[in-house]
Amino acid sequence: MATIGYLRDSEAEGKTKEVYEDIKRTYGCSEPHKVYELMGYVPEYLAASWERSKLCFKDEGELGIKLKHIITLAVSATNNCDYCVNIHTARLKELGMTDKQIVELMMVVDLVNGYNRFVQGLQADPETKPFGPDGLIHRKAGAR
Amino acid sequence: MATIGYLRDSEAEGKTKEVYEDIKRTYGCSEPHKVYELMGYVPEYLAASWERSKLCFKDEGELGIKLKHIITLAVSATNNCDYCVNIHTARLKELGMTDKQIVELMMVVDLVNGYNRFVQGLQADPETKPFGPDGLIHRKAGAR
Amino acid sequence: MATIGYLRDSEAEGKTKEVYEDIKRTYGCSEPHKVYELMGYVPEYLAASWERSKLCFKDEGELGIKLKHIITLAVSATNNCDYCVNIHTARLKELGMTDKQIVELMMVVDLVNGYNRFVQGLQADPETKPFGPDGLIHRKAGAR
Amino acid sequence: MATIGYLRDSEAEGKTKEVYEDIKRTYGCSEPHKVYELMGYVPEYLAASWERSKLCFKDEGELGIKLKHIITLAVSATNNCDYCVNIHTARLKELGMTDKQIVELMMVVDLVNGYNRFVQGLQADPETKPFGPDGLIHRKAGAR
Amino acid sequence: MATIGYLRDSEAEGKTKEVYEDIKRTYGCSEPHKVYELMGYVPEYLAASWERSKLCFKDEGELGIKLKHIITLAVSATNNCDYCVNIHTARLKELGMTDKQIVELMMVVDLVNGYNRFVQGLQADPETKPFGPDGLIHRKAGAR
Amino acid sequence: MATIGYLRDSEAEGKTKEVYEDIKRTYGCSEPHKVYELMGYVPEYLAASWERSKLCFKDEGELGIKLKHIITLAVSATNNCDYCVNIHTARLKELGMTDKQIVELMMVVDLVNGYNRFVQGLQADPETKPFGPDGLIHRKAGAR
Repeated sequence: MATIGYLRDSEAEGKTKEVYEDIKRTYGCSEPHKVYELMGYVPEYLAASWERSKLCFKDEGELGIKLKHIITLAVSATNNCDYCVNIHTARLKELGMTDKQIVELMMVVDLVNGYNRFVQGLQADPETKPFGPDGLIHRKAGAR
Repeated sequence: MATIGYLRDSEAEGKTKEVYEDIKRTYGCSEPHKVYELMGYVPEYLAASWERSKLCFKDEGELGIKLKHIITLAVSATNNCDYCVNIHTARLKELGMTDKQIVELMMVVDLVNGYNRFVQGLQADPETKPFGPDGLIHRKAGAR
Repeated sequence: MATIGYLRDSEAEGKTKEVYEDIKRTYGCSEPHKVYELMGYVPEYLAASWERSKLCFKDEGELGIKLKHIITLAVSATNNCDYCVNIHTARLKELGMTDKQIVELMMVVDLVNGYNRFVQGLQADPETKPFGPDGLIHRKAGAR
Repeated sequence: MATIGYLRDSEAEGKTKEVYEDIKRTYGCSEPHKVYELMGYVPEYLAASWERSKLCFKDEGELGIKLKHIITLAVSATNNCDYCVNIHTARLKELGMTDKQIVELMMVVDLVNGYNRFVQGLQADPETKPFGPDGLIHRKAGAR
Repeated sequence: MATIGYLRDSEAEGKTKEVYEDIKRTYGCSEPHKVYELMGYVPEYLAASWERSKLCFKDEGELGIKLKHIITLAVSATNNCDYCVNIHTARLKELGMTDKQIVELMMVVDLVNGYNRFVQGLQADPETKPFGPDGLIHRKAGAR
Repeated sequence: MATIGYLRDSEAEGKTKEVYEDIKRTYGCSEPHKVYELMGYVPEYLAASWERSKLCFKDEGELGIKLKHIITLAVSATNNCDYCVNIHTARLKELGMTDKQIVELMMVVDLVNGYNRFVQGLQADPETKPFGPDGLIHRKAGAR
């Protein structure tokens, strides 16, 4: 249970109310997400956060919306955030991601979290020539 | 400096040598990456790790190689792994990713790391209806 | 549910019992907190931990008790520790912290967690001149 | 070394240039901090981040600027962010924080990081009555 | 509740089925652990993971099985992974670990998590001479 | 470079000096480790930390000194603490640990960090029957 009360839509005023309205319009929901009902206590913070959020999840930007949700899920898994894992998995399913693709995403999360700690635990030196130009991998990628 | 010596290609034998050869062939480099020169001390571990690594970075799989490097960079940033950040940024540049796209990727990493800790710090309850069906976001995504 | 049984006050002996008594007296509660009922299995560990704990939460020290609870909440949010987030939020409310102040605290936690990972993900170089002497910020702070 | 080039003040245009000017004016420095020279590639992101940053480090808000730098240092230590640890320690020294106070801050960081993982490692149950009303600690705090 | 369905033993085919059979035989259980029922969506990933898992938890290796479970519990506590903490504590109890020993393990986890963040928060320099040859500790260890 | 000056042995007084003497005697070194030269600013904190430290690294306790250094290295790798990784690897080498054993330790660290995030990213449910009684693993362990 949240440690403080949510600042509900019905109680919101001024800039908070304005942002809440934009959130509801953008997401097509009857009330803003809980994270915003908590940010709402500090209106300017809510407003700046919502601006950033729209850059990630409303605008395609350079990377596209789906890819940005995928990044979000990978980071939320790494940080063990149940709230965000659930929301963004639901969103990715809406965007057509299959169960197998989600597991493949987590395969990468698994591998990277492991490798990150392995190289740190042995203090591996920087890689001076990360990838050679003539490998199978490069020829393959070049062919795409 | 690494806390133990690297098991160099010239010293490798048996299964370790075999995997080293496959790594060099796959990446087109004259010696395996340092992470594998450390795993090489435990041959079966090296072999199983290399299998997983190829699934991520050699095979397209469901998500495609580029996307899997993007996930890798997002997780490595979250875990503060200099070694992996450097390698996979280099690889993503080879695959055509621009500076602006890399910053946009880190914009998502920034936002998500922040939101993850915000909701945990206030113990936000699970979102019961994460996204409504009629929002601007959905209509937009539907149009893709 | 805890993975091992709590060492209850009624079962405690020797140094563990002594520390339990001091905890109850200090906090005015009928039994020690659960964290101490687990530490109690290793009496010297319990004793040294309790000494440190009093420095943080009983003695004003250099920073004052309230500030030390604020630091505690920021770190516990970053580490996703439900147990500690709940206890220290409750304590901060007792010490007069408002809901708005708690959200402002989490605004900083959000920002910093995001910035930390952003700079790590791009390997930002050290800042050579972090803050200039004549900025609005400095003149303002100087006026306090 | 940063993995991409900094977008320097001399190259900035439009909204990025505008924010850079505000940063320089606010901090009294001849060029923006490196973190903003990286965010600058995505102007709207830079703008929204800078808004949040001013709420934390320019405006007193509910908690005061110094306290918000203290929270920042505690979180940056927990996340192992050299860049942020260095900047915010320098800032706190400017604001009058002594070496002894910085160590006391890190004493709390040490204790909390340890306790967080201890309770998680034993799956401690939620504390039902965190603090009793008649303890030494409460009477003391009441006397402040 | 898991965000995707488990790929149950009764539905598994090909390499996934093969690995499931080996898991059941190895652990003496009627169905594979949930983590493998999720990995099962990507058969090669499951197979490579299971190889590594056997090196850790089936083969004695250099360190012995019990020690490897102890390392696992220490890391899982540090990462706040309820699922893994519970499984590996149960396993360690089967292998004869007492409640007191588990608390002592968490005492180390507590101390190290705290020290790690303390030295990072103050940017402590590398230790040039970590341990002297004539200390009480060395003579003691030498006597073992 | 540390963000504050070390409180050197030659400057120490009172309880700090006393603890420094005990550290030097215990480790057989001419000056205390840097971590203690920083804790030294808050004498009671130094004293309580040193008590805990001796329980971990001077006394055998329930688990033995070597095992406690192994746990320390696993946690420090997971937290990316260069300072602690270096010290405790050096100590483990003094205690006879081989390069291959250190890699095997990191194999477990790799696996567990990966699994932790995999199960969190998919919100795997608790395992109701973690290990069956008749598996190969159990018969093997029973035979030890």
